[in-house]
Formats: sequence, structure tokens, C-alpha cells
Amino acid sequence: MPKEDLRVVNDPEAADRTAVQGKASLPYRWLVRRLLDGVGQPPITITLWDGAVFAPIGAASVGRLVINDRRALQKLVANPEYEFGELYSAGRIEVEGELPAFLDCVYRHLLATGLRYRVLQVLSRYQNNSTDRARDNIHHHYDLGNEFYRLWLDDRIVYTCAYFPTPKASLEQAQTAKLDHVCRKLRLQPGERIVEAGSGWGALALHMAKHYGVNVTAYNISHEQVTYARAWARRENLHDRIEFIEDDYRAIRGSFDAFVSVGMLEHVGVDNYAALGKVIGTVLGEQGRGLIHSIGRDRPGPMDSWISRRIFPGAYTPSLSEMMTLFEPHGFSILDIENIRLHYAKTLEHWLARFNANSARVEAMFDATFVRTWRLYLAGSLAAFTSGQMQLFQVLFSRHGNNQIPWTRADLYQERP
Amino acid sequence: MPKEDLRVVNDPEAADRTAVQGKASLPYRWLVRRLLDGVGQPPITITLWDGAVFAPIGAASVGRLVINDRRALQKLVANPEYEFGELYSAGRIEVEGELPAFLDCVYRHLLATGLRYRVLQVLSRYQNNSTDRARDNIHHHYDLGNEFYRLWLDDRIVYTCAYFPTPKASLEQAQTAKLDHVCRKLRLQPGERIVEAGSGWGALALHMAKHYGVNVTAYNISHEQVTYARAWARRENLHDRIEFIEDDYRAIRGSFDAFVSVGMLEHVGVDNYAALGKVIGTVLGEQGRGLIHSIGRDRPGPMDSWISRRIFPGAYTPSLSEMMTLFEPHGFSILDIENIRLHYAKTLEHWLARFNANSARVEAMFDATFVRTWRLYLAGSLAAFTSGQMQLFQVLFSRHGNNQIPWTRADLYQERP
Repeated sequence: MPKEDLRVVNDPEAADRTAVQGKASLPYRWLVRRLLDGVGQPPITITLWDGAVFAPIGAASVGRLVINDRRALQKLVANPEYEFGELYSAGRIEVEGELPAFLDCVYRHLLATGLRYRVLQVLSRYQNNSTDRARDNIHHHYDLGNEFYRLWLDDRIVYTCAYFPTPKASLEQAQTAKLDHVCRKLRLQPGERIVEAGSGWGALALHMAKHYGVNVTAYNISHEQVTYARAWARRENLHDRIEFIEDDYRAIRGSFDAFVSVGMLEHVGVDNYAALGKVIGTVLGEQGRGLIHSIGRDRPGPMDSWISRRIFPGAYTPSLSEMMTLFEPHGFSILDIENIRLHYAKTLEHWLARFNANSARVEAMFDATFVRTWRLYLAGSLAAFTSGQMQLFQVLFSRHGNNQIPWTRADLYQERP
Repeated sequence: MPKEDLRVVNDPEAADRTAVQGKASLPYRWLVRRLLDGVGQPPITITLWDGAVFAPIGAASVGRLVINDRRALQKLVANPEYEFGELYSAGRIEVEGELPAFLDCVYRHLLATGLRYRVLQVLSRYQNNSTDRARDNIHHHYDLGNEFYRLWLDDRIVYTCAYFPTPKASLEQAQTAKLDHVCRKLRLQPGERIVEAGSGWGALALHMAKHYGVNVTAYNISHEQVTYARAWARRENLHDRIEFIEDDYRAIRGSFDAFVSVGMLEHVGVDNYAALGKVIGTVLGEQGRGLIHSIGRDRPGPMDSWISRRIFPGAYTPSLSEMMTLFEPHGFSILDIENIRLHYAKTLEHWLARFNANSARVEAMFDATFVRTWRLYLAGSLAAFTSGQMQLFQVLFSRHGNNQIPWTRADLYQERP
């Protein structure tokens, strides 16, 4: 039916948005239409295994989705959010063009449909992050081997959003600036005792001890990371001022001047915020203050099911109202919240570029599926920050009624002597 | 019973905290003890009409509460929060010593009992701030006469928290700095259209139009304020760039680049945040942003019953989680939240000092009861900010997914050319 070749997909809504070229049969045309409708009609091109091409009309295509087999199309239509990742990892679908831009566009259209917020909103909030489960979840992601992370993170293996004083700063400069931004917000004073929850490979603990003269007790449940951090502290001769404890935040004991946690809250789960708030309330002194740096969202919603399954089991990124359940019932006062979402997009640009530059070495360490999985995770995260699906909040707080708080924030932006 | 004269009040809890001197009979001793217990045993001295003195043991007294008649003591015990204000206004109780310090101490002790948060938490949230009711509420407070407010506010009659670049800044300097802080956070650009909700005597609208070259549409339901602001704009020859509309925030229509509201949210009521969020969402452009400056609290709780009755009918100061109900369901992204609580304490110090210096003129305008009422309101508000009962949040937001947002906050703290 040559007349059909350039015919617009016969749906009143899609009518002016997608044209089909090639011999796609009616059932596949229908499936493609359902797929596009389901994600809010983004201007993308879709190519099927048989050469049929579906192209947007009246809008430039942001990229081409190549679907390599029939069953892949069916799976994608049935559960696009989850199967996109599965099929991409397996090489059964591919994206031609810039992957982050393609995903940014799809996310923005998906978001506009509002679908993600209508389903599973409450159910998805529930995570059984018991101490044992939390350890498994963290092991799943963070114990992939330090050598792997060194291939695409900065030289100090900081695996959280950087802070770029200007967009042109290098990743290394921006990670240092982030560590300083956190320390300066906390107004650290020499000799103070700081407790850190979720200390990664130890960069912040070492930075605080070395440049701010504080004593740090750092908790982390990733065995590989703790081992690495302890050795690093010894090399730097800072081990008398930093204790790395391989344990859960729920095990924190002692008395501290400040609490800090960068990139851990995402793994805690809303149901455990009360436990975390109670721990912080117990260990902080009367003039204690704290900072939590975490991915968040503009409103509560379900987690991406593929990310939850393949990348971050047990993770949940809260909205500010959800985050407040950590602070409000436990006697804290919010002093300052900064959203540095675009800095995480910039950070991920650097990570993705380094990852892509080292993909042959990653493939040698793991396999091609692993490379595709991680490329999608990094590109998808980048798109989540550029499209506004994800935010990055730094929340500074103190004990309720504490008047030993900074007068303004001007000191954060003054040159240091 | 002379042996009793210096005896400690016979309660196991109070035993080591309060001593009684003089001939107070048993029932009154019992009432005083109940009063002190009810507010968390603050170290204050209480003197009764018959000369009996109850003094704290082991702690310096922060001030003396003089109770001038029997019935006043009974009322105070029955409902201290409400009756304190009533009796103080009527001159039936007095405070000797620094009133703000006395109240700060009582608030801190009251807060520590946790009582305020256990009762009426939900009930008190409900305000029937319909459009008509809102107009009555606002008239009650803001239409007392511009001459009255000019006696103790700054020269531009700015009746909201100032921003003191340093604690030594004058009130006039700090109010100008506050207006600039708001404008700079909003990154106002010449020619933009700004909508203001709750514009007071017009200082911010005029400041924006004059110093940032924007066009302002300002809504306000206080007739006296709108009349004043219009005349002022004409005097300054800014009336072609500012339109003052005597109407409710719910009546806002049009299309704007930015929304700003300083000191209005307190009068809106949580139940109406959805309506306000919807209005903002309707009138803001795709790259719109906004700022709400409002008194808030560290956790939800009931309003002070005396303040609600005598000073601010219909008012409610939200916690951040409550405030988020305005933003999260309506497609906004929080960019920056700053808590400048201590700046409101400093602002109130200035207001109270000016009020006290002009109390003879205020008494001539109204009467002695009015002077006492307003003195207590100002001193009580000051104590609410020093004790941490109240916070002052500036919340900067933009539309969800808008990437035309500031890269950092450094520009807020740079000297302007």
C-alpha cells in the first residue's frame, strides 16, 4: 500500500505529529503509536527491524530509537519505563544521536503527561531498608571495585554532585569547591567533632580534617570504601583525626558539634527518616548544626522502576515536604536550603564523557551489557537533572532555638584568605 | 505560720526551684505552683497583690511578674497563653524587668514542655479566610491609621522583617537591604512584569519600579494602604509603572515574569495555599520565578490564642512542610530557602524601642490599654524570634523544569556597581 507509506499515523491526536515511511504493518504501527502516546508524544524518530521509520512532523527529531526486534517493541509498549533500560542494556534497542538530549526530551514529555505521578505514588515510597537490606543494596552498587569508579570519577573518587563556581571549572576543581561549600556552610571550626553518615571513599572526611582541623567520625556500610578510606587517611597521616566505622547510620553514637551527610539520604528511604532524625537529635550538642546533601524532587513520586531494579535498589529521592519529616518532629530548624540541580547535570556530563572515553576498559572489566547499562544510567541521570525530574538539595539545619547561627550567608561567598 | 514563709513550695518537682516569701495562703501558693508548672518552670519571680513573693532558687530571675488581683491569678492559671495578654493589656498584671527577655525565657520553657504542640494541633490550622473574612481580618490590623505605624516603623513604613547586612545597620538601611535582597534573589531585569501580592504601603513596589526598572501590578486588600501607596507612586512619578489594585490575591489575573509576596502568606491560611499556588501557576510565564517571604515555624503547631484574637485574626505561620503544599502540587521547583529569624528579632528590637519612645503619642491616639497591648505584641514577637518559636523564611522558586535559573547565589553577595 504505497499510499500509506507517508501517511500520518491514523490517530486524531498523533495525526499531525508522526509520519510513517516503509512497510510497517498495521499492528506495529498501532504499537508504535501506543508507545509514543504513552510517553507524551516526544519528537523522536523510531526505526523498526524491518526498515519502517516513524518520524515526527512539524518538529525536529531529537534522536532516533532503533528497535531491533518485534518482541522488543511489544515489551517496550507494555512497560516502557522499565523495559527501555532492560532492552537498551541488552542491545535490543539503540539510540542514535545524543543520548542525554534524547532522554531529556522524553522525560519532559513523559512528565507533562503527569502519568508518573498518578500511579503507584504511595506504594513506591515503601522501602524495607532494614540494616541487612541496606548493606546488600549498598554492596550491589558501591562495591563494584574502586578501579572501576576511578575510571570515570575525579581523582578523589567523589561520587556525588560537584559544585561548579563557574560552568567552565574542571570536575576536580568543582569537587574541591563542593567539599569547601559544605564545610563553609557548616562553619567548621578547628578542634570540633564532626560525624559523617555515608562517607564514600573518604574525600570529605579527609578534606574536613586536613583543611578545617576538625576530628571526624565517619560511618559507611560499604566494606570496599571503608578499607580504601582508612588506607588513604593513613597515607595522608590523618588517621589520628579520622575514624572510619564500618556500620549503619542507625549505629551512630557519641557527641558531636556537627552532622554531615552527602549523598546518603537517597538510600535511607522516607520510612527511616524518623530513625535518622532521632539519631541526629541524640548525638548533636545544644549548638549542633548539620548539613544533608541529597538528590530530591519537586514533588513526591515513584522511583524509576529500572533504576530501582538495576542500579540503586532501595533508593528513594524525596521531595522537600518528605524531607521535612526528618527535621520537623525532631527539634531542628532549617537555616538554608540550596538547590544546585544544574550542577549535577554538569557533573554527570563530565562523568559520562569520561565513562565513554574509558568504555573499552570498562568492557574488559565487565562486559558490553554492563557498559550499555551504565551508559544509560549516567545519560538518564543527566537528563533527569536537565529536565527537572531530579533536584539536588543541600539542607543546612541547627537545633531548634539555637542562636549560634550565621548572621547572613555572605561569608560563604567571600574569598578565603 | 512563720516557718512556712521561706519554705519551698511543697511539690517534689518544684521543690528546688521556687521559694515563697510573705504570707501567701495555701490556695494561692498552690495556684502559683500550677501556673509555673504549666509553663515549664521558668526562673521568674512572681509577686502577688498581698506582697507574697515567689522567687526561683538556684537560678537568676529573668524578671518579675506582678499579679495585681486574685481573680487575675485564677484566670492566668486557667488559660495562661490567652489570659496573659488580656490581663497585661488591662494592667492587671505587669512585668518588671526587660519584657522581651522575660518572654523569651517563658517561651523557651513553655516550648520545652511540648505542651503547645500536643493540643489543638490540627484544629488550629483551620481558618475560614474567605475573601470577605480576609478583608475584615486585614482591616482589623492594618487600617489603624498610617500615622500610628509611622511612629515606630521606618520612614517608608515597611512592616516586615528587615535584612541587616551587619547587626549594627540602622533600621532604614536594613529595610532598604531587605528590598534589595528580595529583588536580587528574583534577578529582576528592566522591563519585566512583576505581580506583588500583599503590597503594604507600597515600599517594595516602588523600590522595584524605581531601582530595577520593572512594571509592577500590586494587590492589597487594605484600603488605607492602597490609598497611601497610590499617592506615593504619583509623588515619585512612578504611577505609569505601578498599578495598585485593591483586591484579594485570589483575584490576580494576567501574565507576569515574577511573583513576589512579602509578609502576606501569614494571613492566607494553609487551607488556601492550593488556591494561591494555582493562581501563581496561572499567571507566571514558562520561565517565571517567584519569592515568598513569610514568618514560619520549625514544626506545625497552634497559633498563640491571644495573638489570634487581639492582633492577627485569621493568621497562621506555617512550617516548611506546610508551606510546601503551596509549591509541590502546583509545578514549582524550590531554588533557595533562607531563614533570617535573627533579623526579625533585630527588626523588632528597633520597632519596640521606637514604639516605647513614642508611647505617649500612641496613648494620645488610642488609650493606655492599646499601648500595653501593642507593647506586649511587639515584645512577645521579639521573644518568639529570639527563642526560636518563630522563623522567617524567604522561599525562592521557579517553574518546574525551567533551566533559566541562577547558576550560584554568589551574585547576591557581590557589590553592585
